[in-house]
Amino acid sequence: MLPTFRRDPRVRLVAAFDPRESATQAFGREFGGRACETAEAVCADPAVEWVYVATPHQMHVEHVQLAARHGKHVIVEKPMALAIPDCTHMIDACRAAGTHLVVGHSHSFNTPVLHARRLIDSGRFGAVRAIHALNFTDFLYRPRRPEELDTAQGGGVVFSQAAHQVEVVRLLGGGLVHSVCARTGRWDPARPTEGAYSALLTFRSGAFASLTYNGYGYYDSDAQMDGVGEMGKPKAPGTHQQTRRKLAAATDEAEEARLKAERNFGGSAYVPDDGAAPDAFQHFGPVLVSCDGGDLRLTPRGVEIHDREGLRFDAPPVPPVPRSEVVDELWACTREGRVPLHDGAWSRATLEVCLAILESARGGGDIILGLQTELPFP
Amino acid sequence: MLPTFRRDPRVRLVAAFDPRESATQAFGREFGGRACETAEAVCADPAVEWVYVATPHQMHVEHVQLAARHGKHVIVEKPMALAIPDCTHMIDACRAAGTHLVVGHSHSFNTPVLHARRLIDSGRFGAVRAIHALNFTDFLYRPRRPEELDTAQGGGVVFSQAAHQVEVVRLLGGGLVHSVCARTGRWDPARPTEGAYSALLTFRSGAFASLTYNGYGYYDSDAQMDGVGEMGKPKAPGTHQQTRRKLAAATDEAEEARLKAERNFGGSAYVPDDGAAPDAFQHFGPVLVSCDGGDLRLTPRGVEIHDREGLRFDAPPVPPVPRSEVVDELWACTREGRVPLHDGAWSRATLEVCLAILESARGGGDIILGLQTELPFP
Ligand SMILES: NC(=O)c1ccc[n+]([C@@H]2O[C@H](COP(=O)([O-])OP(=O)(O)OC[C@H]3O[C@@H](n4cnc5c(N)ncnc54)[C@H](O)[C@@H]3O)[C@@H](O)[C@H]2O)c1
Ligand SMILES: NC(=O)c1ccc[n+]([C@@H]2O[C@H](COP(=O)([O-])OP(=O)(O)OC[C@H]3O[C@@H](n4cnc5c(N)ncnc54)[C@H](O)[C@@H]3O)[C@@H](O)[C@H]2O)c1
Repeated sequence: MLPTFRRDPRVRLVAAFDPRESATQAFGREFGGRACETAEAVCADPAVEWVYVATPHQMHVEHVQLAARHGKHVIVEKPMALAIPDCTHMIDACRAAGTHLVVGHSHSFNTPVLHARRLIDSGRFGAVRAIHALNFTDFLYRPRRPEELDTAQGGGVVFSQAAHQVEVVRLLGGGLVHSVCARTGRWDPARPTEGAYSALLTFRSGAFASLTYNGYGYYDSDAQMDGVGEMGKPKAPGTHQQTRRKLAAATDEAEEARLKAERNFGGSAYVPDDGAAPDAFQHFGPVLVSCDGGDLRLTPRGVEIHDREGLRFDAPPVPPVPRSEVVDELWACTREGRVPLHDGAWSRATLEVCLAILESARGGGDIILGLQTELPFP
Repeated sequence: MLPTFRRDPRVRLVAAFDPRESATQAFGREFGGRACETAEAVCADPAVEWVYVATPHQMHVEHVQLAARHGKHVIVEKPMALAIPDCTHMIDACRAAGTHLVVGHSHSFNTPVLHARRLIDSGRFGAVRAIHALNFTDFLYRPRRPEELDTAQGGGVVFSQAAHQVEVVRLLGGGLVHSVCARTGRWDPARPTEGAYSALLTFRSGAFASLTYNGYGYYDSDAQMDGVGEMGKPKAPGTHQQTRRKLAAATDEAEEARLKAERNFGGSAYVPDDGAAPDAFQHFGPVLVSCDGGDLRLTPRGVEIHDREGLRFDAPPVPPVPRSEVVDELWACTREGRVPLHDGAWSRATLEVCLAILESARGGGDIILGLQTELPFP
């Protein structure tokens, strides 16, 4: 989120904490904000309006509660948490404090997804009948902390990546998933967590969705996205294939975790954003929405509309600041009195689907859901 | 199959029957073979070695039994039949007669599918872990006979099109499907049968497959196949979109069935094959096979191999006669003593999966299979 926070004029970074001292120090130097010594100090700072929680998954619940206790609005990274009761604690804490809780960034904030939703809401294409989403990435071979390779601690692609894909699909399908049937793959004993899944979701409307994610991908589905990567930038050839090779340099768990940390803000291998305005949107792989009156295909530059009339292309302007859609939502709720889309209950429902993917894959069969929420608009 | 039979030097058409007189007459004129007055007369002809049954699905069982009774080898179109007992009758009839039973053409005969299977069998890529298959077509809006729009009579895409897609996926996954979970779409009340489905197949090996077919497609997934259509030929722009418009000309069921019949051999709207050698293979939409050591992507020109080394492309030669892979298999079993791949038991197992798609979609949940067969090779 740093490129966004740095360049979106609506955001000022005023305080931060990270146990990695190099990060807190770099923060003070670069942003002139308060380099705090505890998370609590950030939350207690009267200059702070929103707290952005980007700690490892398992800490989200603790940090959201902390921020809420200090009366702050919170944006917390996906996945919201590892278990439903934790989500509920987070929702309750913010409700009690009277503050907003937004879960993000996720790729359901991307303009093409929101634009497709608006096209659906226009009624021009009739009901959504089916959705298809695919993503082949090198996710499992990027440097990881040990818990990211342990499902019990929130590791694997269901927690980290279905959090995006299910969000996108729920947003396009209206939110109310009735049931989930899924299979997961744990194919690499050296990285013993889910690296892939295929899931079949049924919405209460009867619409269904097929989701496939493969984080062991040798194939890179960005080939279907005009060679634009997840971050909306052209992907250098070979990037994808080099992932496994680079990881081979890590000799053990600790070394791998260090490799990961060094790539973070304040680390020795940190690559600052080049500041160039992106010419494409971020995306989460090919997505197709089939409606009664037309099919919508999401691309990194907008939405292809296939209908009786043929093919048209809606190309909303690419915002000069990447992910500024996230700031749009924070702004809308605290400056314009609007209801956030990605609130706690909405995001808990996404986690419910992700947990159902794991459960269905363990036991087979359809898992029936009970905590789904609808889109708050139109 | 006519372009194949006409141009493959291993085939001679010696007798034929069709209740459409114009077809039988045109056959006599064009091929100089016997224009028979009954199907039985074809089967009884001593000059006939193989009988090709290309009658509507529901007649397959009767016509295969007839051919077997006369001691002929039979190739019968997909889907093999509408119910498992009928498949068993067909298998038994040919076994009793000591003749071969091959089910085809289906798109599992396509060279890229067979080539991918050979790559898998080579062991270079390790185990197959997952398969993904997608196809968006205009299937439901091509002119149809009434029974093709009535599931009870074999109508809809599960009988007609899953027959291809499941075959392809089973062939690549080794054949032994353990369970099926699926959803189907019946979205157009004017054409009240399944026009779409998504299915999740689990193989006994633990591999899983995600299959999606949408015959209401406004989107045309041939866009992902270099613009090459199912028949291996470049698709003229607009072809796909014109389907719905053309069908609108049919005023009722009978008129629509007539429209369809007139496009057949001997009909007034029959367009003979141009005889040009195809420069691409036939295909059934994008297919991805994920193995431990690499991903295989089928294209209309061969197989993309994505692995640690990067991307290579295997481009087997395109046979000058389309679908000559079908004749290869007939030839192999009657001239070279080899076991056919697409025999009765194999194809019954494909129908078992298709029926499970319908059953799972009706009742939800996983359907466990019991009649699956392995590939007879390597
Ligand atoms: N939305 C997206 O696209 C996206 C992308 C990557 C990560 N994430 C999410 O961000 C979260 C972090 O993942 P990551 O991959 O960036 O991990 P990471 O290990 O790279 O970063 C976690 C950061 O939290 C810091 N930290 C650890 N304990 C802390 C504490 N008690 N207080 C404050 N800071 C603490 C770490 O030092 C580190 O800087 C996860 O929930 C992940 O799912 C989201
Ligand atoms: N493999 C493929 O790619 C493919 C493509 C199309 C059709 N098919 C299969 O071929 C079969 C026929 O389908 P279609 O779409 O061509 O139908 P169709 O109606 O176009 O053709 C059926 C033909 O059978 C004839 N017929 C009807 N009753 C007969 C009888 N008693 N004896 C002999 N002939 C008889 C009809 O006159 C007609 O010529 C189906 O099983 C279908 O699934 C396969």
